[in-house]
Amino acid sequence: MSRWTFYTAPGTCALATHIALHEAGAEFDLVKLDMSANQQQSPAYLSVNPKGRVPALATERGVLTETPALLAFVAQSFPAARLAPLDDPFAFARMQELASYLASTAHVAHAHKRRGARWADDAAAQEAMRAKVPQTMTACAAYLESQIAGPWVAGEAYSAVDGYLFTIGSWLEGDGVDMSQFPKLSDYLARMAARPAVQRALAEAQA
Amino acid sequence: MSRWTFYTAPGTCALATHIALHEAGAEFDLVKLDMSANQQQSPAYLSVNPKGRVPALATERGVLTETPALLAFVAQSFPAARLAPLDDPFAFARMQELASYLASTAHVAHAHKRRGARWADDAAAQEAMRAKVPQTMTACAAYLESQIAGPWVAGEAYSAVDGYLFTIGSWLEGDGVDMSQFPKLSDYLARMAARPAVQRALAEAQA
Repeated sequence: MSRWTFYTAPGTCALATHIALHEAGAEFDLVKLDMSANQQQSPAYLSVNPKGRVPALATERGVLTETPALLAFVAQSFPAARLAPLDDPFAFARMQELASYLASTAHVAHAHKRRGARWADDAAAQEAMRAKVPQTMTACAAYLESQIAGPWVAGEAYSAVDGYLFTIGSWLEGDGVDMSQFPKLSDYLARMAARPAVQRALAEAQA
Repeated sequence: MSRWTFYTAPGTCALATHIALHEAGAEFDLVKLDMSANQQQSPAYLSVNPKGRVPALATERGVLTETPALLAFVAQSFPAARLAPLDDPFAFARMQELASYLASTAHVAHAHKRRGARWADDAAAQEAMRAKVPQTMTACAAYLESQIAGPWVAGEAYSAVDGYLFTIGSWLEGDGVDMSQFPKLSDYLARMAARPAVQRALAEAQA
């Protein structure tokens, strides 16, 4: 296949797919957007991804977006890396269930801290959203704590969703969650941070 | 396999999976929750799905939640029904990309109309969220309009995500979207409404 291009920005959920690409051993070009300069809304980037968000993965067949779809795509494209239980629909659904929860519940709760303008124009309303983030993210942390079978989220088998749980899990403390309440999750995040693919993706995204 | 049990409630996103189950020809028991009586938060239901939401699908291996995961699971469990491009990772990712967008962007935008208490405690903030729903859902409708290759969303091949697009697409008018701006989407919703599996799921959910 032709070489892929992966679009990311530091501190975003794109880290999850970036980790999966390195866990898979994929070769790809990396494009980093400066969100402080609003590059994700530039005409050049909107021609790649009209949603104006990261991640986006340009492939020989078109541009793919949305983390849960990208994690499954990387896993299916590199089956030898065993990043998903591809021959077990139930276990695959478990992985996608967590990915979907992270996207539509946990990431959404987090986004109410700084992205409240997506859902209300009023400054006081946005401040009210920000005020609730520690509570909603603590509820998310409690659910995530319950999901870790250990050492990885599904148990012995590492999978692509681990990089997503690591990404959003790393936001919890900054969102006002008391991580001492969640020892399994805390230990898990430390284990994840030691993986070479995680360190490489973090270094590249932040360089 | 042992018989599945599907948990739904009228007027919710669970319709998407309900449609997929009928398109697949699955046999299952149906349990309908009365959300006006808050049955989704009853101890009996929380023992099935601790998230206190629908949909949930109880299988012989455990309970699955989250619509994007359930749609893929139904498609993979009934491959003869051809509800997903199971042998084409890119096309499968396209289906999951739309499912993820519907879950984490469109459904989330819609939920700010009546479920604002998830993200802010203040009544005025919840009212500010409600006020923006016509705008956010119109933006979603414009994106969805652009995605319909016709006659089904991916083109000639019907897939499990069509039932999800139908479900959320059916909410747009009630959310204040002027559907006359979106003729492809309007025609699509009418085509979907004529499918026997859609009619059966709607009748069962609302009965």
